[in-house]
Amino acid sequence: MNIALLGHGVVGSGVTSILKEEKVTDLAVSKILVARKESIKDDRFSLDFEEIINDESIDVIVECMGGIEPAHSYVKRAIEAGKHVISANKKMLANHMELFELAKSRGVKLLVEASCGGGIPCISNLQRIARNDPIFSFEGILNGTSNFILSSIFEKDLGFKEVLKKAQELGYAEQDPSDDIKGYDVCYKSVILSYFAFSKIIDPKDVFTLGIDTLSDEDIAYARKNNKTIKLIGKAGYESDRFYIYVMPHFVDERSLFGSVDSNYNIFQSSSKYLGKASFIGQGAGSYPTGHSIVQDLLDLQQKKYTEERPAFRGLVENEREGIFYIRCRDHSFDELKEEMITADSFLTRECSLRKIQECMKNCDDETMFIGEMDL
Amino acid sequence: MNIALLGHGVVGSGVTSILKEEKVTDLAVSKILVARKESIKDDRFSLDFEEIINDESIDVIVECMGGIEPAHSYVKRAIEAGKHVISANKKMLANHMELFELAKSRGVKLLVEASCGGGIPCISNLQRIARNDPIFSFEGILNGTSNFILSSIFEKDLGFKEVLKKAQELGYAEQDPSDDIKGYDVCYKSVILSYFAFSKIIDPKDVFTLGIDTLSDEDIAYARKNNKTIKLIGKAGYESDRFYIYVMPHFVDERSLFGSVDSNYNIFQSSSKYLGKASFIGQGAGSYPTGHSIVQDLLDLQQKKYTEERPAFRGLVENEREGIFYIRCRDHSFDELKEEMITADSFLTRECSLRKIQECMKNCDDETMFIGEMDL
Repeated sequence: MNIALLGHGVVGSGVTSILKEEKVTDLAVSKILVARKESIKDDRFSLDFEEIINDESIDVIVECMGGIEPAHSYVKRAIEAGKHVISANKKMLANHMELFELAKSRGVKLLVEASCGGGIPCISNLQRIARNDPIFSFEGILNGTSNFILSSIFEKDLGFKEVLKKAQELGYAEQDPSDDIKGYDVCYKSVILSYFAFSKIIDPKDVFTLGIDTLSDEDIAYARKNNKTIKLIGKAGYESDRFYIYVMPHFVDERSLFGSVDSNYNIFQSSSKYLGKASFIGQGAGSYPTGHSIVQDLLDLQQKKYTEERPAFRGLVENEREGIFYIRCRDHSFDELKEEMITADSFLTRECSLRKIQECMKNCDDETMFIGEMDL
Repeated sequence: MNIALLGHGVVGSGVTSILKEEKVTDLAVSKILVARKESIKDDRFSLDFEEIINDESIDVIVECMGGIEPAHSYVKRAIEAGKHVISANKKMLANHMELFELAKSRGVKLLVEASCGGGIPCISNLQRIARNDPIFSFEGILNGTSNFILSSIFEKDLGFKEVLKKAQELGYAEQDPSDDIKGYDVCYKSVILSYFAFSKIIDPKDVFTLGIDTLSDEDIAYARKNNKTIKLIGKAGYESDRFYIYVMPHFVDERSLFGSVDSNYNIFQSSSKYLGKASFIGQGAGSYPTGHSIVQDLLDLQQKKYTEERPAFRGLVENEREGIFYIRCRDHSFDELKEEMITADSFLTRECSLRKIQECMKNCDDETMFIGEMDL
């Protein structure tokens, strides 16, 4: 099978290293698209996508460029040209879920294991479970950067801004970390996982998404005092037959399974009728773990071991799921939900739905507001 | 595909329930072997194995009888008759690993996902990882009964004998719980997992196996005082290119991943070159979780999604792996290893190998002795 890589950064170079070192039979990288002349290392490298898309010997295109454009246009053209595509690009995929239908209609595969959870085989296991076991819900710590920041805060007794700065210096966080710390990255992954778990196509804008960017020392102190730690968690599923999908910080017990997943490790947990809770933990990012997932997709393609997707449909998000929430807010927008005051600004809500929280948020003017769900 | 079930207890009835409720296409249970007349419910049931083995319409035999004989003879005859076999029987398989070679030579599949970790997809994920990622080692909490007992001791502040009695009353432990609490069950599972992880055939007698049957209040108090909990763990792999495989109680941090796996949940963790540590957690036993794994094997067979096993060879166990061990023993057999006394009878060893511990044990006359490895 002849492979072209689009992009040769952290992920792409992981793929070429694994294929070279492990000498996987009949998988050869014959073209590598890079953006700058200085990245060219040998005659497989090219600056011209047209050269790659017009090369009929290429069977599969591996997209690991990141960003929405031109990644989306390249993937679309590759599918239209009858080439299989493997992509690690959650942002592009979540915003262009129609690519899965396009791939089906052209009789090629679009495999995306590496887009969710780095090295964790989330999608292959979800698809395997779903063969004979209806999936009710999933939840996961799905972003390495925010989990690294949160773990460091709780392990090293540091504040949010201090840790973020350190993470940026170490290269664990981008200079613009919005996608990671505002929850968007987890939102994209939750959209993709909902496609495989529930055959639902969800618009990322319909996902109720909150991040850890407004986390304060006060919130951290409350968690500590109650033997809890804070994790940014994406969740989706059914409650009373109504679909919910959201990303939110959670106060979880230090000694719980989710509380034990630290640093750059991620966890993905599905709940299904017969298997119950099944959890998968591994490195959520990095050159080798993500490269491993892409090579798995290549092997599935080569060995025809992929699972045929079921028909998927646009899904309605109702967010009727109920919980108890910690809210810190300086105005009166959440007053009707107050149940137990913690400080002058922070309180626990009565049991209420996600939709109710979203409604109250519309009236809120406090940009420093922080909301987290209490894991009971 | 026509299926015959051997045995219709906890596991077998899980399989028939899932197949009936989920209406899996083209998988039909046409014969069910039971031991007693009173178990016969409809005309699929039979008391006669000969009727099943001689039925040429049967494609696959699912063995969920338990015990070594007659399960082993039935499986052997099924393979020789050219039928695929699925088995949940770890004790029989670990003691007859030659059945895998026999199946290969007859061109049929012997699929055993349900034999290790109940509902956890240990084997399918191990085989998937091993396609392009050399596996260095694995470890796991692989026995539900002992984990239920250990969790109850630490959660409810009870002693070992008290909890064992309660577990027996509730049906969570057998009347003869030796296989579970003496570590044999984990030994069998570690042997099977070593076959898939390392292509090694290990004699269960070569596995250094210790259980929790001699756990005392003194040992529990030591764990508590150090914010640790005790877990029975099976481990195998390479250290400095030398192979080790053993089953032993471990003192693990309360807040660690392994420390958070409680009750009837099990964990399986592999370490490989690119993926690093990958962990899989789920219910380690029970009708539906184990039934789910068997139905997965049936679907793999139907969809030809199984992985071809690599050639396997008899493996030498060297147990040169080193660690620090907690030992409680009333005689002098371990004196040379003492590093730090805890009580008059119990101490921590200096860093020493498993083989050294095994050697000292030969001279030990204290039947109440307890050994556990310290997780550092």
